[in-house]
Amino acid sequence: MERLRLGMVGGGQGAFIGGVHRIAARIDGQWELVAGALSSDEERAAASAAELGIAADRSYADFAEMAKAEAAREDGIDAVAIVTPNHMHAAPAVAFLRAGIHVICDKPLAATPEQAAEIARVVRETGRQFILTHNYTAYPLIRQAQAMVAAGDLGEIRVVQVEYAQDWLTEPASNKQGDWRTDPARSGAGGCVGDIGTHAFNLVSFVTGLKTTSLAADLDAFVPDRQVDDNVHVMLRFDGGAKGMLWASQVAVGNENALRLRVHGTKGGLEWAQENPNQMTFTRFGEPKQILTRGGAGANEAGLRTTRIPPGHPEGYLEGFATLYSEAAHLIRHADSGTPLPVGVHAPTIKDGLDGMRFISACIASSKADAAWTALD
Amino acid sequence: MERLRLGMVGGGQGAFIGGVHRIAARIDGQWELVAGALSSDEERAAASAAELGIAADRSYADFAEMAKAEAAREDGIDAVAIVTPNHMHAAPAVAFLRAGIHVICDKPLAATPEQAAEIARVVRETGRQFILTHNYTAYPLIRQAQAMVAAGDLGEIRVVQVEYAQDWLTEPASNKQGDWRTDPARSGAGGCVGDIGTHAFNLVSFVTGLKTTSLAADLDAFVPDRQVDDNVHVMLRFDGGAKGMLWASQVAVGNENALRLRVHGTKGGLEWAQENPNQMTFTRFGEPKQILTRGGAGANEAGLRTTRIPPGHPEGYLEGFATLYSEAAHLIRHADSGTPLPVGVHAPTIKDGLDGMRFISACIASSKADAAWTALD
Amino acid sequence: MERLRLGMVGGGQGAFIGGVHRIAARIDGQWELVAGALSSDEERAAASAAELGIAADRSYADFAEMAKAEAAREDGIDAVAIVTPNHMHAAPAVAFLRAGIHVICDKPLAATPEQAAEIARVVRETGRQFILTHNYTAYPLIRQAQAMVAAGDLGEIRVVQVEYAQDWLTEPASNKQGDWRTDPARSGAGGCVGDIGTHAFNLVSFVTGLKTTSLAADLDAFVPDRQVDDNVHVMLRFDGGAKGMLWASQVAVGNENALRLRVHGTKGGLEWAQENPNQMTFTRFGEPKQILTRGGAGANEAGLRTTRIPPGHPEGYLEGFATLYSEAAHLIRHADSGTPLPVGVHAPTIKDGLDGMRFISACIASSKADAAWTALD
Amino acid sequence: MERLRLGMVGGGQGAFIGGVHRIAARIDGQWELVAGALSSDEERAAASAAELGIAADRSYADFAEMAKAEAAREDGIDAVAIVTPNHMHAAPAVAFLRAGIHVICDKPLAATPEQAAEIARVVRETGRQFILTHNYTAYPLIRQAQAMVAAGDLGEIRVVQVEYAQDWLTEPASNKQGDWRTDPARSGAGGCVGDIGTHAFNLVSFVTGLKTTSLAADLDAFVPDRQVDDNVHVMLRFDGGAKGMLWASQVAVGNENALRLRVHGTKGGLEWAQENPNQMTFTRFGEPKQILTRGGAGANEAGLRTTRIPPGHPEGYLEGFATLYSEAAHLIRHADSGTPLPVGVHAPTIKDGLDGMRFISACIASSKADAAWTALD
Repeated sequence: MERLRLGMVGGGQGAFIGGVHRIAARIDGQWELVAGALSSDEERAAASAAELGIAADRSYADFAEMAKAEAAREDGIDAVAIVTPNHMHAAPAVAFLRAGIHVICDKPLAATPEQAAEIARVVRETGRQFILTHNYTAYPLIRQAQAMVAAGDLGEIRVVQVEYAQDWLTEPASNKQGDWRTDPARSGAGGCVGDIGTHAFNLVSFVTGLKTTSLAADLDAFVPDRQVDDNVHVMLRFDGGAKGMLWASQVAVGNENALRLRVHGTKGGLEWAQENPNQMTFTRFGEPKQILTRGGAGANEAGLRTTRIPPGHPEGYLEGFATLYSEAAHLIRHADSGTPLPVGVHAPTIKDGLDGMRFISACIASSKADAAWTALD
Repeated sequence: MERLRLGMVGGGQGAFIGGVHRIAARIDGQWELVAGALSSDEERAAASAAELGIAADRSYADFAEMAKAEAAREDGIDAVAIVTPNHMHAAPAVAFLRAGIHVICDKPLAATPEQAAEIARVVRETGRQFILTHNYTAYPLIRQAQAMVAAGDLGEIRVVQVEYAQDWLTEPASNKQGDWRTDPARSGAGGCVGDIGTHAFNLVSFVTGLKTTSLAADLDAFVPDRQVDDNVHVMLRFDGGAKGMLWASQVAVGNENALRLRVHGTKGGLEWAQENPNQMTFTRFGEPKQILTRGGAGANEAGLRTTRIPPGHPEGYLEGFATLYSEAAHLIRHADSGTPLPVGVHAPTIKDGLDGMRFISACIASSKADAAWTALD
Repeated sequence: MERLRLGMVGGGQGAFIGGVHRIAARIDGQWELVAGALSSDEERAAASAAELGIAADRSYADFAEMAKAEAAREDGIDAVAIVTPNHMHAAPAVAFLRAGIHVICDKPLAATPEQAAEIARVVRETGRQFILTHNYTAYPLIRQAQAMVAAGDLGEIRVVQVEYAQDWLTEPASNKQGDWRTDPARSGAGGCVGDIGTHAFNLVSFVTGLKTTSLAADLDAFVPDRQVDDNVHVMLRFDGGAKGMLWASQVAVGNENALRLRVHGTKGGLEWAQENPNQMTFTRFGEPKQILTRGGAGANEAGLRTTRIPPGHPEGYLEGFATLYSEAAHLIRHADSGTPLPVGVHAPTIKDGLDGMRFISACIASSKADAAWTALD
Repeated sequence: MERLRLGMVGGGQGAFIGGVHRIAARIDGQWELVAGALSSDEERAAASAAELGIAADRSYADFAEMAKAEAAREDGIDAVAIVTPNHMHAAPAVAFLRAGIHVICDKPLAATPEQAAEIARVVRETGRQFILTHNYTAYPLIRQAQAMVAAGDLGEIRVVQVEYAQDWLTEPASNKQGDWRTDPARSGAGGCVGDIGTHAFNLVSFVTGLKTTSLAADLDAFVPDRQVDDNVHVMLRFDGGAKGMLWASQVAVGNENALRLRVHGTKGGLEWAQENPNQMTFTRFGEPKQILTRGGAGANEAGLRTTRIPPGHPEGYLEGFATLYSEAAHLIRHADSGTPLPVGVHAPTIKDGLDGMRFISACIASSKADAAWTALD
């Protein structure tokens, strides 16, 4: 099958997540990167493009020009990956969607609710695919967990614990990644809550299927002079009575990227941690705890569908991310060519993006109101 | 050195924690159990006493009688262990204190604030030792952690995460232990929050030395018809600006006795989990995480003082509990005979008990007020 | 029930294992230490005895005198614990057995095969109980594992991996414990192989029930000038065709007391590690791995019988050791008073001691013969 | 930089390792798969090629034809990946080498020593690059471990423990993968020893730099009627006096792909396990154990060089494999175009392949001689 053509906005030299998207796009052989506006600095854009084997005439210094030019080409890109800082998601997203090009966008959706709403409006109007890279939902065992909850293996959910702890911002930011993530002009009003809190929130929503009705949040900026939060405590209330706690931190010394989810229901409980994503524990009440492995004994269809290699051969972060790119390929081929969708395809969409923005806003509002319960809507 | 003489109230056949106290009292050879009012049922009391090698004339059916009789004997008990359900702590505590006998009391302090206040008053008036068995503070690595925080190894504390998860009350209680713990007349108004939440709270206070100024709590009774909480979500604010989260649950399927503490400061972070209490991780910011073991490389004085056997030879719950009994022996010998106190002696006291009662009350009040911030004082 | 009276040979100030035996004897309240020849130095013996609350007239400087005197007393000891270095096991064992007193002896049985044979002969002749403290066989999950293998849960055993790694002798010995263990005059010809290799071997024999027919061993003394082995590699062949590997080391940097057992059969496999002895994994072929916990879901009778407190409340090394003392109490009460034996009582005996001596001898002989297969008989 | 052109022999529909090679070749964007003889069945070859986007005229049913045709093309392949069963490595390797095309070959090198010797001769004669995919040597922490040993961080190596346990052949083989691996005509005389034992052996050699001088092996075929070994016990002796044990098994129930390495020296020890490859423990004698993470605090140049994404974002098996493809690209660009080699480039070569064949032969010979010490040369 011919590869889909991918463009990229952002992700030039010195960036982090752009490189991740590129590897992810390559892993399953569904995509070819052929165009880019990799930097707003024209020279850096060109140098980055050359390094990546993008033809010189498809390296653009300007995303608007790129959208226009690619839309006009016979062999124009099928989708664009937007990997810029948060405040630079909306403008290119709108430009490409309006140009008829599908969008794969990094999270969170935008820096402001207004930007988010605009993207959503244009997605609705254009009917183009919009995939938000909440990549953690694509880990095979997370897919398996979601299916287990949906199948009732845990009974009725009562309690959810989610946490996402890092320590890289324990001291004032000193590199490009830290700079923009702690600058509200670029990251939006949320710091840690937007950068990783949204991942945690999205993971809970995906796995449990529960709708969060309200939350009470206590946000802090522990590092002196930091303008955005770096530690986030949230209590959650879900539709139907389940309760949750969410902790996100970028100042929790001793943690690298410790996203961890625990779900407890009337009949069972499960636990998964991102740093060793190839195993998950599951306990049926009154029985011994089981260690479920990616693709191993006890794997279900949802987990197997997103698994590439045998159990015991660890897949990691890049493979999970790659699964999103393959899901995107399915969705886009289906949209553009009517190729049938495989059973179980899933990718986070504009809805997840809007939910994430509501989560950020509600956390900030609640925290300003001394952690008052704040509805998510 | 001659053994101290111990009496016991409660802990007859079918009880759980009484047996733990007895083993704990034996481990270091500092105590001899010589008297008891082991049950309010006279026959069961006598049978239990016989089994334990207590002389028939020192098996009492009534704690009041016991206090009086033991106080009158030349060879009367030095201390009494009170291991009854919560609502039966105050009366015997008062009786023995008034009789001049030191008290070792199980937690939480009492079923009601009034009972707690009365005990406190009598402790103050009599000057007798009062030791509350928050046993988790006696694990060697917890002693070590406390000393590390106090020495500034973690810098200024920012974030504390504590949790105590069990699953044994996932379904309606069906045994003696579950019965009284879910009956507000015997346990007090708090269920899970009193039974294990207080342990978690006490552990945080001990290790960090931080004073909790206020909390916001969301309590649930998930099991139908349960009259007390079985799941507890709390956000904590500490004097000086640090923040914390506390989760206690008795319906978290997949957990046996999962008490876990994490403390993060400006310079370092540590993590300890009760189910494998012989190791703790510690990270200095920017350095590799270390695994500290009980008595192993990196052990400090506080940890070594409470260690019996070499690293790699696991000590457990009973040894930690036994340390409290040995600490009690030091304190009582000091009080009664002027024996010098070893450096580092520590046992939870009436103050910890009152703090725990305030914690329970604040949690319940906050939860009733829709998780409003509630001061602890 | 009245406590049994225990005497002790060895274990004076500065010793290690004597203290362990004393705590173990106290934990379940079945024993009272009333007599001792705690040191061959009379003054140290007396001081040690005083510390331990042994009456002055029952502190002996000489085990022979002690055996004679205690045998003559109405209230003489029921059993003696021998906790001296290996070369000093045989003489006291023989003396006490001949005096009609049961013996609890530390491992390995003796420093030489001749000493071992003499003890065995006298055990046979006197009919007294002889319990060898291979304490690791008394961990609840090891009892459970043994019962699972016996019940066929693993099918026919094919492969056994056992290892016991320490690092405390990585450099030349510099304390009392290290001194005698590396001195062939006191430890016997085996160093590491006798001190911890025998534990590993005994554990395999106990859990699997397999008889080792022959072995090939490669022993080293890595530390310059060390006179006994400090690293032991062994391949094992069992009756019936199963195979095993055994590694014991006291120079494996990074290991404290890492005894670990893995057993694999046609139908299942299990794994247990001493440093976290409250859990074991078990896998039925083709099913998810289970985590079995001491006393938790999936516990069998053998495991529950040796469990004191609920799952999640860790029991450790001292409790396992204490179980041996309680088993000894059962066996001795049965022998002396006809008290019925509980179902499942087990303690290592002279047979285990002789097997261990054969194991040591075979390892040394094989290693001298360039790891030639050497029969165990 | 332009991508290198890759061909593939084997790896058609239903194969396992071919797919791994293809993903590995894509991850870093250095390779493009453009030609293949994917199956000896012409139709299957064509269908597989079509699926993979290989042009029809570059899908060959015959590797000899492919070598000839590709060598003749201006845009012919730079290298071929040989991913056939072991007995089918030599013929294509020789054909492509002779055609001037570099070879990337799966392990073990060949089914027989004769085949291996022929490949080696042709490599020598042609001077082409020959890379053997002992992929485990490319994990970042294994690179880091190798550099740490080389730098003397562990002191002089004394003891090495390596094991590679699986359970998928616990019962008679029932799929394509199991079939050829248990058929000596296709796998060679070694079963488990060749398939995974060689990985374990290679890992030891790479990390420690030690030369194995002799070994004593005890091989078994536990499954009835199995014609090759499925469980392998080996004692190793290294040049300079260090000792090792190696266990490989495909019948160890409870293990998926449990490759694990431990190295202990006079100054330090380390431990790594493949199933969670992003962490490794390291202990300096007398200091607390450290957890080293891929790319985290304590990472060295060798580890960082082979790391793509930040610590806490797990890389897995496919990334390690991909690193070999990128190393191959460096070596081939250097050979063909004089591109400078980056510092630290490493890939297993024909030498590793020959060492692996010697290891297999020595194990089989030793086992037949009742585990007699057998030299490796």
